[in-house]
Amino acid sequence: MKILVIDEMHESITPLLNELNLEVDYMPKINREEIISIIGDYEGLIVRSKTYIDAELLQNTNKLKFVARAGAGVDNVEVNELEKRNIHLINAPEGNRDALAEHTMGMLLSLFNKINLADQEVRNGKWDREGNRGVELMGKTIGLLGFGNMGGAFAKRLSSFGCKIIAYDAEKTGFSNDYVEEVNLEKMQAEAQILSLHIPMNAQNKGIINSEFLLGFKKLDYIINTSRGEVLILKDLLKLLKSGKMKGAALDVLENEKINSLKDSELFVFQELTSLKQVILTPHIAGWSFESYEKINRVLTQKIKLLVEKQ
Amino acid sequence: MKILVIDEMHESITPLLNELNLEVDYMPKINREEIISIIGDYEGLIVRSKTYIDAELLQNTNKLKFVARAGAGVDNVEVNELEKRNIHLINAPEGNRDALAEHTMGMLLSLFNKINLADQEVRNGKWDREGNRGVELMGKTIGLLGFGNMGGAFAKRLSSFGCKIIAYDAEKTGFSNDYVEEVNLEKMQAEAQILSLHIPMNAQNKGIINSEFLLGFKKLDYIINTSRGEVLILKDLLKLLKSGKMKGAALDVLENEKINSLKDSELFVFQELTSLKQVILTPHIAGWSFESYEKINRVLTQKIKLLVEKQ
Repeated sequence: MKILVIDEMHESITPLLNELNLEVDYMPKINREEIISIIGDYEGLIVRSKTYIDAELLQNTNKLKFVARAGAGVDNVEVNELEKRNIHLINAPEGNRDALAEHTMGMLLSLFNKINLADQEVRNGKWDREGNRGVELMGKTIGLLGFGNMGGAFAKRLSSFGCKIIAYDAEKTGFSNDYVEEVNLEKMQAEAQILSLHIPMNAQNKGIINSEFLLGFKKLDYIINTSRGEVLILKDLLKLLKSGKMKGAALDVLENEKINSLKDSELFVFQELTSLKQVILTPHIAGWSFESYEKINRVLTQKIKLLVEKQ
Repeated sequence: MKILVIDEMHESITPLLNELNLEVDYMPKINREEIISIIGDYEGLIVRSKTYIDAELLQNTNKLKFVARAGAGVDNVEVNELEKRNIHLINAPEGNRDALAEHTMGMLLSLFNKINLADQEVRNGKWDREGNRGVELMGKTIGLLGFGNMGGAFAKRLSSFGCKIIAYDAEKTGFSNDYVEEVNLEKMQAEAQILSLHIPMNAQNKGIINSEFLLGFKKLDYIINTSRGEVLILKDLLKLLKSGKMKGAALDVLENEKINSLKDSELFVFQELTSLKQVILTPHIAGWSFESYEKINRVLTQKIKLLVEKQ
């Protein structure tokens, strides 16, 4: 069985797959046209996010058994095009959920304790204690929208902070545990003071977190997005932050992450958001740790192994 | 009973003490000479850290029953001078341990996930993912030096992160629990990859964390200090960071926190430390949250109540 890897991956990928007696062509620099021209030779395709996997890309596949996404989100894959062709889709949220949970916790605590602002001040010779008092997570109610691998891993970390954790997932029920209370959307909007997004990006979720949705909350002060930028309308968030209706935001993802080629309207929102002290930003790295880079390969390899054994 | 408050406190202090039928003179602007001249009228003194409580300050006390420190550390109080005069010392670590634990966790995760650096980059128009990969806490061994209120509260937060928590306290034993393993110093130095300081400042602890101590560790990469600056020799830490023997530091406290009037040698170390990307700094605010400001008053009032009832 031959596997084509079309993105840069941790160096463990080839030896891990070779151990399963799979042949690997590691071609991280390959472009879309080249993929289309050679994909017919392969039973497996491993991708990160550079390439959009659609009907055009799949036109010459005749042996392809699986597409494996080295990460959690599969929004760069047209799932129905795979289904039509009986191609399995594999992803690896178990590989980066811990990185994401730690990063999300770090962004929240950094925002609450003004750590990024205070660090800059100290470096600039300013030692302001009273101006940098923090806000405690303890005793607050945090709502998780989406309770898959990411929401679950974040909830685990939150469980030792003495806050109330409620979660709503449109796709599943029955997931309450010792520290998470499953709620409906109405209860989440009534109680959550902090909202953390852990939903996938797809047609239903695009722009779902807008003014109307956010204004439906009764006590919402903070929002965290470490899922996908396109689910949250930034201009709507900006308005709520500037009016004081919301107190802060931690954003690892943006609607358009090509921040040096934004349209005028996007640029305006980006500049306004980045001028606010109550916003903290990171460049889509929540799931990116040195450990997750390698763990993702082990998760993918394990899932490929199961698939190959079933054939 | 009359109580003198000589520092700025959360506004709840007077009503809380009045409920106990205690009379309060709230004089946050009072200076040392004025305190000495009127202290003879009071049964209680409430302080933060502005004033050093020594024999001179206590010379005119004849009714004083207690000194209450609105915080955890009592390094601004000469404890033996109180003992000589049968004056009780009260502090309130239970009031700010949660703030400290959350802030310490935030500094550690911010350092590990490069959140402060990445936030600055994004604001400056740079979207660098690969350069901002994080390091995971999961699976690492963290050593807590000191296991009082602060070490204990931090350990609680750490308990949900899947790391190994070991602790050594020179003053107590028998504190192992479900998630903390009590160890001796030798084992801590053999195993800890991260060291977090939770010891009080006193004559024995001054400068105790020096080159020799740090070089005694076999695997130490990171240090966090949210205790007192004087326990950690910064020039020794700087040398280890610059040589690459240690990978990073999170410092909420400094040997000399008057950063605008440092001696030349101190200024050199401060400038070198603040130029390092692997260092994160905050201005002695770990225990300072809006919530702790008020919780400290409730803890102090409760302890004063018990003391008054015993009289």
